Parts: sequence; C-alpha cells; structure tokens
Amino acid sequence: MILDYKRKADGLDKAARKEESRRLREVLVGQQQAIREAKLPVIVMLEGWDCAGKGNLINELICEMDPRFFSVKSFERTPESEERYPFLKKFFDVLPANGKFLFMDTGWMEDVVGKYLRREIPKDEYERRVESCNTLERQLRDNGYVLVKLFLHISRGEQLERITALRENRDTQWRVSGDDLWQQQEYNRFLKTYDGFMSATSEYGPWHVLDGESRKKALYDALLAITGTVERAVSAGRYVGKATDREFPLLGHPSQRDADLTATIEPGKYKEELERLQKKLANLHNQIYRKKIPVVICYEGWDAAGKGGNIRRLAYPLDPRGFDVIPIASPTPDELQRHYLWRFWTKLPRSGHVAIFDRTWYGRVMVERIEGFCSEDDWKRAYGEINEFEKELTDWGTVVLKFWIHVDPQTQLERFEARQNTPEKQWKITDEDWRNREKWPQYEEAVEDMLQKTSTEYAPWYIIESVDKKYARIRTLQIVTDALEKAVEENVVRGVRSHRKKESKK
Amino acid sequence: MILDYKRKADGLDKAARKEESRRLREVLVGQQQAIREAKLPVIVMLEGWDCAGKGNLINELICEMDPRFFSVKSFERTPESEERYPFLKKFFDVLPANGKFLFMDTGWMEDVVGKYLRREIPKDEYERRVESCNTLERQLRDNGYVLVKLFLHISRGEQLERITALRENRDTQWRVSGDDLWQQQEYNRFLKTYDGFMSATSEYGPWHVLDGESRKKALYDALLAITGTVERAVSAGRYVGKATDREFPLLGHPSQRDADLTATIEPGKYKEELERLQKKLANLHNQIYRKKIPVVICYEGWDAAGKGGNIRRLAYPLDPRGFDVIPIASPTPDELQRHYLWRFWTKLPRSGHVAIFDRTWYGRVMVERIEGFCSEDDWKRAYGEINEFEKELTDWGTVVLKFWIHVDPQTQLERFEARQNTPEKQWKITDEDWRNREKWPQYEEAVEDMLQKTSTEYAPWYIIESVDKKYARIRTLQIVTDALEKAVEENVVRGVRSHRKKESKK
Repeated sequence: MILDYKRKADGLDKAARKEESRRLREVLVGQQQAIREAKLPVIVMLEGWDCAGKGNLINELICEMDPRFFSVKSFERTPESEERYPFLKKFFDVLPANGKFLFMDTGWMEDVVGKYLRREIPKDEYERRVESCNTLERQLRDNGYVLVKLFLHISRGEQLERITALRENRDTQWRVSGDDLWQQQEYNRFLKTYDGFMSATSEYGPWHVLDGESRKKALYDALLAITGTVERAVSAGRYVGKATDREFPLLGHPSQRDADLTATIEPGKYKEELERLQKKLANLHNQIYRKKIPVVICYEGWDAAGKGGNIRRLAYPLDPRGFDVIPIASPTPDELQRHYLWRFWTKLPRSGHVAIFDRTWYGRVMVERIEGFCSEDDWKRAYGEINEFEKELTDWGTVVLKFWIHVDPQTQLERFEARQNTPEKQWKITDEDWRNREKWPQYEEAVEDMLQKTSTEYAPWYIIESVDKKYARIRTLQIVTDALEKAVEENVVRGVRSHRKKESKK
Repeated sequence: MILDYKRKADGLDKAARKEESRRLREVLVGQQQAIREAKLPVIVMLEGWDCAGKGNLINELICEMDPRFFSVKSFERTPESEERYPFLKKFFDVLPANGKFLFMDTGWMEDVVGKYLRREIPKDEYERRVESCNTLERQLRDNGYVLVKLFLHISRGEQLERITALRENRDTQWRVSGDDLWQQQEYNRFLKTYDGFMSATSEYGPWHVLDGESRKKALYDALLAITGTVERAVSAGRYVGKATDREFPLLGHPSQRDADLTATIEPGKYKEELERLQKKLANLHNQIYRKKIPVVICYEGWDAAGKGGNIRRLAYPLDPRGFDVIPIASPTPDELQRHYLWRFWTKLPRSGHVAIFDRTWYGRVMVERIEGFCSEDDWKRAYGEINEFEKELTDWGTVVLKFWIHVDPQTQLERFEARQNTPEKQWKITDEDWRNREKWPQYEEAVEDMLQKTSTEYAPWYIIESVDKKYARIRTLQIVTDALEKAVEENVVRGVRSHRKKESKK
C-alpha cells in the first residue's frame, strides 16, 4: 500500500488540476442532495501521517458544503473518558444519519496502530482489533453505509521539515505533540505497520493513498475518490447485506420447551434468599467498581412476565452512582436513521459500571422481524452482527448476561386481565399488548431462533421461569452474583489484559 | 437552615414510620403516572454531607419506581472534561423530559460550595455562581419544572465514625476520597457555607433538611417532601412564568432601519480583504485554542440573505478539530419535552473551541412567537432568559457575537426566484419559505424587538447588510477577527479569571 509508494505525476498541469478540483467540488456539493434522496450515509475516513495536513485537507473538502448535511469529527486525541469503553464505541457514537456525510480526522487505523506501537496493547490484542475493524467495515457496508478510506502520505524528510517549521512559531508549537516527535523518530515502524493494517483491511473497501507533499494534488485525488465512490453508490442504490457464515461458539441448549414453569419458591425462603443475595450483590458491586469491570445485563421476555419487578430487585442493592437501568422503547426518528445497534453502542456502561437493559437489541430479531420493520435479510443478518457486538463487549472484559423472562400464555392472560381490572395498573396494559399476544406462536418461534443462534459461550442466554415471580427474582440474582463473583476472582476477564491492568492501577 | 439544626422526634414509632413510608412509596409510584399525564418534569436534588448516605437514600426512593419514568444522575465527581464548560451546563445536560423524574446525587450547591472551599474559585465568583443558581431555579420554575431540594444532614462525629468504618474494609476504602477526609477536617467551614448557600437560594423553592443519622427517618421525610411537592404541583397544573423585570446592560442602538443596504465592496478589494482576514482568522484560531477561549457565533437572518455562504467563508480558515457549525432546525420531539434552551446548552463549545450556530435560540422570539408555537408569556419571558443564558457564557469567558444577516424584501424575492429557476438549487426553496415571506411585517417587528431587548454589552447584535453578499462576508470576518484579537490581548476575558488562568497553564 504505502511501503512501496512512489510519488508520480498524473499528467495534469497546475491550471487543469485547479479547474478539475473546482468542478469536482461542485459535484460533491451536488452529491449532498443525491445522498439525501438516496438515504445513504457516507463516511469519509482520513488517515495519514502526523503533520501531513489532514485538517487542511478536510477544510478544503468541506468548504463549499452545506453544514446541515455533514459533520466533522476529530479523533486525534482520544480523551481519557473514552478509554473506559470498548474501542469501537467512539466510532459508533458518531455514525452519520442517512443522507449525511461524516468526515473523520483519523479513524480506526490510527487508533489501533497508534495504541499498538505505543505498547498500550499487545500483539494479540492488536490482531484482534484489526479483525474488529474488518467486522465494523462489513457491518457498515451491509447496513447501507458508504465508506471512503483515504491515507495522506508524506515522506519522513517532509514530516521532519514540517515539524521543525511548526515548532519555530510560538502560536503553532502547541500543535506538535510528543506523539508527533516520536512518530518522526519511529517513522519506519509506523510505515510498516500502517501498510500492514491497510493490507489487512482492504476487503470491504479500498484504501486511497494521497500525495500529501502536494496540497493541490492531494485535494484533487481525495475529491476523485470521494465523488467516484458516492456516484457509484447512488446509482447502485442502498446495499443490504446477506447473513455471513461466520461461526460463533454457540451453547445451543436453551429452549423454551425445557423450561419448568412449575418452579416455585416458598415465601419464607424467598425473603431470606432475597436479603442474602442482595447483600452479596451490594458487596460485589463495590468490587467490580474498584476493579473496573463493566457489566451488561439484558432483559427480554413476554409482556407481563415480571421483568419490571425483577429488575427492581436486582437494582435495589446497587449504588446509584454505578449503574443505569436503560428502558428501550421503539426507536426514535433519529435512531431509525442509523445502524440499528447505534442506540445501544451509545448507551454502553463505562468500565466499572452496570447497565441493565429493559429490552434490548434483540428487538431486531423479534418485533422488527415479526412486524416487518426491517427486511428479511436485515434480521437474518442480525444474529451474527449481534454475536459480533457482544464479542466486542466481552473482549473488552464486559460481563454480559441475558435473561429471557418466561411465562405461558395462560399466565399472561391472567396478568393482563388483572391489570385491566385494577384502575392504577390500567396504564400498564395497552391495545398493543393484546395484539402482540395474538402473535404468540410467531414470537415463540422468533424467541426460539434467537436463543439457538445467539447463546454464546461469552454471552449466554438464561431462561428464567417466572410463573412464580419470586422464584424468578431469586434465579436472576443468583446468576448475576455467581457471574460477578467469578469475574472478580478472575480479576481481569477475557481479552485486553494489559490495558485493563494498567487502568485498574490508577 | 442547618447551622442551628437539632435532631427531633416526630412522634412516630418505628412500626408507624415503616407503614407510612410504605404508603408514601406507593404514592410516589402512582405519581409517576400523574406527572406523565400532567406533562410535568420533576427534579429531586439530594445534597448533603459526604458519607451521609445519599446513594442509599436514592436507592430507597426509587426501588419501586418504573425505570422508564425516572433517571438518576450522580455529580459527585465532575470529570475534567466537564470543567471545560460553563458550570451550569452539566445540569442543563441532564434535564428530565416532561413527565419524568430526575434524581440528582448532589447538585449545584455541592458544585459551587465545593469549588469555593477548595479555593478553585474566588469569593466574587462564588457569589456570582450563587446568583446563577437562583436564576437557574427561577428559569426551571417558569418553564414548568418541579424542583425538590433535599439536604441529608449528619453531625461531624457521625461523619468521622462512618469514614473510619469505610476505610477499615478493603472493598469500601476506595469510597473514601481525599475530599471526604478534608471535608471532615473542615466540617465547620462547610457547615457555615452550606447554610449560607441554602439561605441565599430559598426564593424559588424551600430546602428540606433530612436527619441523616436515622436512615428510616430520612427516607420518610424525603418521601413526605417529594410526594407533597408533586401533589401540589399536579393539582396546580403546569406553571408558566411571567417576564421578570431584571435589567441588563442593553446597547439599544441596532435597528433594521439604520442599515445601509446599498453598501458594497469592489470585487478586487473583496478578494484581497477575504484573503487577508481569513489568514488572520486562522492565526487567531490557533491563539484562542492555545489560550482556551470559547467562542460562540450566532447567525440569524432573512431566508436567502446569504447566511450559508457567509458561514462557509468564516469557517474555511478554521482548523476542523477546533470548530463546529451547528445547524438548527425545528426542535425534535425529544427537545420539545424540555426547557427550550436545553438543545443549545448541550451544544456549547468546549473552552478553546468555536461554535457557529446557523440559526439559534432566537427562534423562540421569532418563529415560535409568530407561529404561536409557545405562549405569549413564554416568548415575552424569553428575552430575559436568553440574556441570562448569554451572561453565563460570557461570565465563563466566552466571546459571543450575533449577526443578523439583512436584506430587503425585493432582494429576497429575486433570490427566491433565482433558486426556483435553477434546477440544482430548487431544493433550497420550499413552500414554507414563501409562507414566511408573506409574514415579513410580523417578522420585521419581532426582529426589531429582539435587537432592542437582547443586544447587550457582553453579547452584542450586529446587523450585516447583505444585498452585496461579498460586502457582508468581509464585514462578519472583520467583526470576528477584531473581537478575537481583543479577547486574545485581554488574555483572560471577563469573569472566572483564576479558574481560566489555572486551565491555560496546563
């Protein structure tokens, strides 16, 4: 990619290139409307050497564009607070809506390569992250995103000259960081690693190397790459990916058929166990906070199965500074304009915190599947995408637990009727609940598929029998405390060992 | 308030208090529906001593509530990134939507008192912030918020005992911070200052002091205060405040009548000036970045007056890592559920950054006034509220500049027709533009009111004559560069001197 890069003339003289750039810039301005109409989100990721002029280039690209239809996001200096999340989160956070451009001033390549060369992550974690980047790029493509990857290249000598010039001026010397100086010194290692990263991530979109030693030429080449990609994408129409055949370590065993709905707990025992487990959980919460272990607990289940009361018993012993209950309703218009996992990525817990999701990303393969809110390709692809999402979480060290709160149709009916007949509970039951109830068989099938396809070793499903709600509460508390105890004992859970260890010393 | 606090019995025995607390908790659960129907947002702010048990109390309060209708936000440890904004921003950021409860684990009292006693802000800045808190509380009340202020009180001896107990356990010792130890040592100074703050901020809602030495009693008293306040608010209905008679340092002179719309610039001169001023601006941007001066530039103006092109010329020389253009459209459903300034507070620039607003909070006194999207009291009150908002910005050191891009009706008509007749520009002209045009006289009056009532010494309006768009661009560039030059020379602008000085050393 860049290891053997040679600057070369493109046969255009200065005037012709200027004229062509002017024309392409106009094309780009027009494409803002084209992608709006085609509902395509476009990401332009600009990577490159320190001091190569990335900021300037972005300015030249956007200077005629309408600010309502694009945004610029800079990742050069990752704030420490973002280090408390899986590394892909910051990129998901800024995903553009349909019909919008996003320009990224450095993206996932710099993030991964930089951390590796600065020895913040070891080799195996580096390789894992390269794979995560590929997964991200595939997911973006499959969900209709258009991605343009640019690399702004300058030679080692050119970089040195620019650093020197910046340092000589009092108002620009702050722009030269220790990292820049270090990159200059380690230029050859960076060259090799950038090149390797680019080769390893060319499957879902080509890299365009720009000649950073000529500002005009780099602009022209960038405009060519962007407008060309967008034009092809607009005429092809929005892409919808098929499910991949990637395999996951499935557990495969949980099924609604195996649930023993007669399970109960005797009231005296319930009280005793509740107290004991809540006390234990409060202690564990202190420990995971101190050891910075993130925890994600997912609740799904039949309407009126007792999710709410179950969640409240789990949340009660937790310190409110360290957890959130996140209720998930239908997506807002803003959320519908983006990757369906966007609204979950943005709500992940910081390391050391607990997020309890009251309904989750599994809506994709249940209500959205059944009501036709997404295409068949979309929900069929989602099982794998969700497994990948949860893998990112657990690789980062997150404890992920998923509960299906289970009852039979007769129990649900009794609870619906009880709600209907109790004035202060009537708001809890809506026409939609009755409509969903009529679709019990379809949901049952969808739930079964979900349990089979997404119960992984790293993020298992638990079916929680909840005809006796008290029994169900004790079960979830038991599973959560067991899992947290295990995580605390292992101290650092799965992947990112070095990074997490470093963090917990702080 | 708490200086002369004496613990006292309330005549309830243990069993009676338990029973009453149970009943009140049920009332609170029911009030979730009541505030939903009344569209009331409720903020419960829990202040109190370190180790008084604030987290526990909040948990006891929320344990039966439905997570869809409340959230908890902890402010005990302000992340450094939040220190780069005006201190009220973090509270505006978390304002609950209509019909929702927000529980705050410490609020603006701890923030202001803590910073003052730790000598992070001087006495005069402390006093200014106390006034800002009063302003905030009034604005919340006037915009329909219900605020419950609680203080969880324990004695110095009790605090010492609790700190000691926490430090003896390995899993809880991290909970005791240096700040806690220091508060214990400085208990009497804190006592006096808390008390003073509470006395100074009792105008827009009473403080409720809770007996933190008895967990059960504190819970009962908190439930009494919350449910009582909410009950009164629900039966009174949503409050809409009148305009206050607070005075602001108005400049009073700008008027559309004084604009000289024949002003032009000769093309050669334009090119030369554009280049010169953009270069100057690029330099100044480096300096304000280094000196951490925040900048807010507001654009309002007639449709087709040339706002977009003007903004692009201003943005072109700026480093994309240090600025954002923020286009403001109609409020989203989420935004409509909150204080109308919420969506602007949440988009403020960090210190050292530039935010260019393409349309602004002045929509309240223009389109919302004219189209009846808010009540007469709402928009009449808004002039003062906006002046207060901009005062918060400038007290923090922000440079605030406001441009009214001005043309006459005839010029607008010509531009509308030109857009209509140019295929690639047709999307820029909508039926709504034509409808707005018919209301020119009403808008003219509203603009005149706005210019007269909100052009303050600290945040002046500039009328930019834009029949010759090139002239307009040079004018705004000139005003911006002049203002930034002045700000850079003064080094630290207005208020918060000590704090900002400290920051810029980093």
